[in-house]
Amino acid sequence: MFRTHTNGELRSENIGERVTLSGWVQTIRDKGFMIWVDLRDRYGVTQLVFDQDRSTPELMHSARGLGREYVVTVIGTVIERTSKNAKIPTGDIEILVSEISIENTSLVPPFTIEDQTDGGEELRMKYRYLDIRRNSVRDKLLFRHKIAQSVRNYLSAINFIEVETPVLIKSTPEGARDFIVPSRMNPGEFYALPQSPQTFKQLLMVGGIDRYFQIVKCFRDEDLRADRQPEFTQIDCEMAFVTQEDVLNTFEGLTRKLLEDVSGKTFGAFPRITYQEAMKRFGNDKPDIRFGMEFVELNEVTKGKGFPLFEDAELVVGINVKGCSNYTRKQIDALTEWVKRPQIGAQGLVWIKVNDNEITSSINKFFSEEDLKEISRHVQATAGDLILIMSGAISRVRPQMSALRMELAQQLNLRNPHEFAPLWVVDFPLLEWDEDTSRFHAMHHPFTAPKPEDVELLDTNPALARANAYDLVLNGNEIGGGSVRIHNRELQSKMFGLLGFTESEANAQFGFLMNAFQYGAPPHAGLAFGFDRLVAILDGNEVIRDYIAFPKNNSGRDVMIDSPSVVAPEQLQELHISIEETID
Amino acid sequence: MFRTHTNGELRSENIGERVTLSGWVQTIRDKGFMIWVDLRDRYGVTQLVFDQDRSTPELMHSARGLGREYVVTVIGTVIERTSKNAKIPTGDIEILVSEISIENTSLVPPFTIEDQTDGGEELRMKYRYLDIRRNSVRDKLLFRHKIAQSVRNYLSAINFIEVETPVLIKSTPEGARDFIVPSRMNPGEFYALPQSPQTFKQLLMVGGIDRYFQIVKCFRDEDLRADRQPEFTQIDCEMAFVTQEDVLNTFEGLTRKLLEDVSGKTFGAFPRITYQEAMKRFGNDKPDIRFGMEFVELNEVTKGKGFPLFEDAELVVGINVKGCSNYTRKQIDALTEWVKRPQIGAQGLVWIKVNDNEITSSINKFFSEEDLKEISRHVQATAGDLILIMSGAISRVRPQMSALRMELAQQLNLRNPHEFAPLWVVDFPLLEWDEDTSRFHAMHHPFTAPKPEDVELLDTNPALARANAYDLVLNGNEIGGGSVRIHNRELQSKMFGLLGFTESEANAQFGFLMNAFQYGAPPHAGLAFGFDRLVAILDGNEVIRDYIAFPKNNSGRDVMIDSPSVVAPEQLQELHISIEETID
Repeated sequence: MFRTHTNGELRSENIGERVTLSGWVQTIRDKGFMIWVDLRDRYGVTQLVFDQDRSTPELMHSARGLGREYVVTVIGTVIERTSKNAKIPTGDIEILVSEISIENTSLVPPFTIEDQTDGGEELRMKYRYLDIRRNSVRDKLLFRHKIAQSVRNYLSAINFIEVETPVLIKSTPEGARDFIVPSRMNPGEFYALPQSPQTFKQLLMVGGIDRYFQIVKCFRDEDLRADRQPEFTQIDCEMAFVTQEDVLNTFEGLTRKLLEDVSGKTFGAFPRITYQEAMKRFGNDKPDIRFGMEFVELNEVTKGKGFPLFEDAELVVGINVKGCSNYTRKQIDALTEWVKRPQIGAQGLVWIKVNDNEITSSINKFFSEEDLKEISRHVQATAGDLILIMSGAISRVRPQMSALRMELAQQLNLRNPHEFAPLWVVDFPLLEWDEDTSRFHAMHHPFTAPKPEDVELLDTNPALARANAYDLVLNGNEIGGGSVRIHNRELQSKMFGLLGFTESEANAQFGFLMNAFQYGAPPHAGLAFGFDRLVAILDGNEVIRDYIAFPKNNSGRDVMIDSPSVVAPEQLQELHISIEETID
Repeated sequence: MFRTHTNGELRSENIGERVTLSGWVQTIRDKGFMIWVDLRDRYGVTQLVFDQDRSTPELMHSARGLGREYVVTVIGTVIERTSKNAKIPTGDIEILVSEISIENTSLVPPFTIEDQTDGGEELRMKYRYLDIRRNSVRDKLLFRHKIAQSVRNYLSAINFIEVETPVLIKSTPEGARDFIVPSRMNPGEFYALPQSPQTFKQLLMVGGIDRYFQIVKCFRDEDLRADRQPEFTQIDCEMAFVTQEDVLNTFEGLTRKLLEDVSGKTFGAFPRITYQEAMKRFGNDKPDIRFGMEFVELNEVTKGKGFPLFEDAELVVGINVKGCSNYTRKQIDALTEWVKRPQIGAQGLVWIKVNDNEITSSINKFFSEEDLKEISRHVQATAGDLILIMSGAISRVRPQMSALRMELAQQLNLRNPHEFAPLWVVDFPLLEWDEDTSRFHAMHHPFTAPKPEDVELLDTNPALARANAYDLVLNGNEIGGGSVRIHNRELQSKMFGLLGFTESEANAQFGFLMNAFQYGAPPHAGLAFGFDRLVAILDGNEVIRDYIAFPKNNSGRDVMIDSPSVVAPEQLQELHISIEETID
């Protein structure tokens, strides 16, 4: 037997018991006459003691031979600790060891297995199995597991069925780039890995499984940005015989349950705002509403003062930075430089400082004190506040101002990661025009239904058609998104037409779905959560990679197992494929 | 709103309520003055009634316009049914419809959506979304979900953590053929889809996650036999600081829980037999012990009688077919022909019929009545029994006799699918010699530890070394298998050597694992269940395909979505691969 107890388990009630413990050597303190060893496992740390008065010389010798991260099993007696350690749950006791066996030795680990490690990210990725031994990493995996269990139990209790959909599916031209898998049994043909189980879950609805979910791996062969992974996990959900309202209520319920479990607080109804309103008030379709600093449109109040940047602008928009009227010239210059960086691309920043006795600004030449007061009334600024204003084309100024708003929130520490501010953003546009390809793209995906009252816009002005599509936003992150789906063959066919598919292309790719719609497809709608991100945010973090047991780096490589890798020529031969010379 | 209730919900307590129901039209009975419609959803069937005395002509007209599998929403009043239907839970009531809306029409489905359908397998696969509407198929998916939930809850409650391991991993030459995935970002290199998360779960043990599980998709690019799928699901488990005994007890606990939930019966300790014993008593390493008919070796008792087939045989083995002494010549000839078929390949069958007054046999020429009685005593035959005997080389006769035993059990209806007979088979050989390649293969996999007492056999006689490997067998099916793993670099390295890897090959493929073993790998062991098969057997079935929502056919094709398929030339270009001309 390797252990009678874990290393997090023994308390003063156990004093006098003979126990067997196993684990890793965390630290060794050798005072000559006594040696203390901290033994660690997933559950905690227990102190072992070797004492020249009470332990044999052989045992003292064995203890001296231990090294960090050695794996040992010890038999000993639980005794009271002379100097108690209130910081750990086992701090009242220690184990007087009578037998020790070394299960495995260890080389000196390439970084310290401590909460604050000395290992850099690349090194920790390469030795991920050692990184996982650290409490902080292990706790994240445990947290993820608990959330997954909670989701499954919640949804199962309300009649959702988890159904496994296939991983080897069919490549489709819509959306991101597919990973493809050559088929040996069907030479020249390929499977694709799913970007989501979208069509399968819709077919399950056609099949009468009216409440489906799945926590499922999805795949996108995209160039990886800092915190994106080629494989990621979704909580994928779909319901039949429901309206948008039903879907929102159902998954608000799930999200509320998770938030309440994690935070110990209660949450009322989540705010719901339209896409248009989100863009107007926050310049962003996933607004962080943990703090205010909402946009105030100032076109009217700044008109006719002769300031060219405002006069000609499609949008003049200000935010009220509470309590920051004492910003120095230097600080404001730094913000101005920040918004002018190519990533943001703003032209500049107008400022107004509202103080008790005076109101100063960078636009004094054009605006009288009364004008400035009028502006400050509009943004509800009071003494001590700083107003920042941008102007230009709506499509440019909104994201620029939104970036500034988020940057200020960061600088002013307004984003408490353990405060949760969920909201729904609804009524997304159905389509967006892509200048590059001169065609419409589906804003959500091609299966999203237009609002019934906007269906006729598909013929007259598709760009104005709104979708019954919704996003669930938490702390400035889209954690879920979905839509009411089309369940009618003709409408689906028209939609593919708008997206530039010929009829034969649409049939080749999605014929099976449109065919299914002819056999009594029920009204249905659904939603998918990005599980990696959801878990990170619920845990007060935003780095999703930390919540993935074996993540890949930005080149899509697993540096631990060194994958991808070359394969044997026979494998390629069997698959009837060959590698093209790379043109450099 | 689409529904206030499901179609399985309303009872006589609801009489008088105004309700809204949605679902599919199952049947329509038009008696002229009255029309009855059965409305179906996942939860049941509710009868709708339209009555010319109580319904408007428009409503009667709408009802007459309905077709099978139309999707409708109705508003109506729950009324008492005049002729009650005790067969369905809603049989006491019906709905007098006051409003109906057709959500979708349906073409006539290609097969009937009934428990007993007229659709053949291929047709039902192509229209799987319609097949899923059938109660029997839907119930199987629901059963699968419940078992998965039960497994997760059981294991989570005893500190197992579900950890998601990667799907895009590295191709290895061991085991079955990998599916591979070209990497666009690393041209010329490939990921592989996991045949199991074996190495990752071992790395999790090295990482201190001492109780891991995952219900996870795995992939094998093998030629598909009748009931194999290229993608299948495992319950993958691993534990650290455990002996084989701990693993067996833990997963016996899980299996017992599932069996008890499903059967309502209680199960004691599962029998444990060694591989050698299983082969000796059943000729099979996954014996079905729902019935007896065990092998009895008859070499001793048949020796020296001059019957050449027995005299020269390595093994003479008999079974006692209880109560079958009345088998006719024709029946015995049929069995003889059956065992002589090329798939079985036996030379023949010796029979002895034991009756009250006489004992007859096909070997009267060589065996006296007393000899035959002696044999019948050995196989514990009494009046009315039939003894069947085979002889020849052990490696051939055991599987032949095992096949006969199973065939007889089938014919005699001894295999009750709702009776469960689990057992453990332990002490598997570590290696098996492969004549074709003239080298050893790992019987379980290359990470399996030899029994400590057999380690030195690796140097002297590897074929005799036994492994701490075990299978969980249920009703003649291997539902799970696992082993204690090697956790020592040197032993793992020696093992790869025995399997014919050069040191550099072993390092290239598994260097990350052997490297990990140098940093304090704990003793560990694990097991994986074949989830598809487990679910099928627990449900009293053996066809795993029925328990997969969207299965592939024997050519690995999804005939519903028509996958695999050709992909766009640009996709291949981006991946730097091309398709080789197929040589016919």
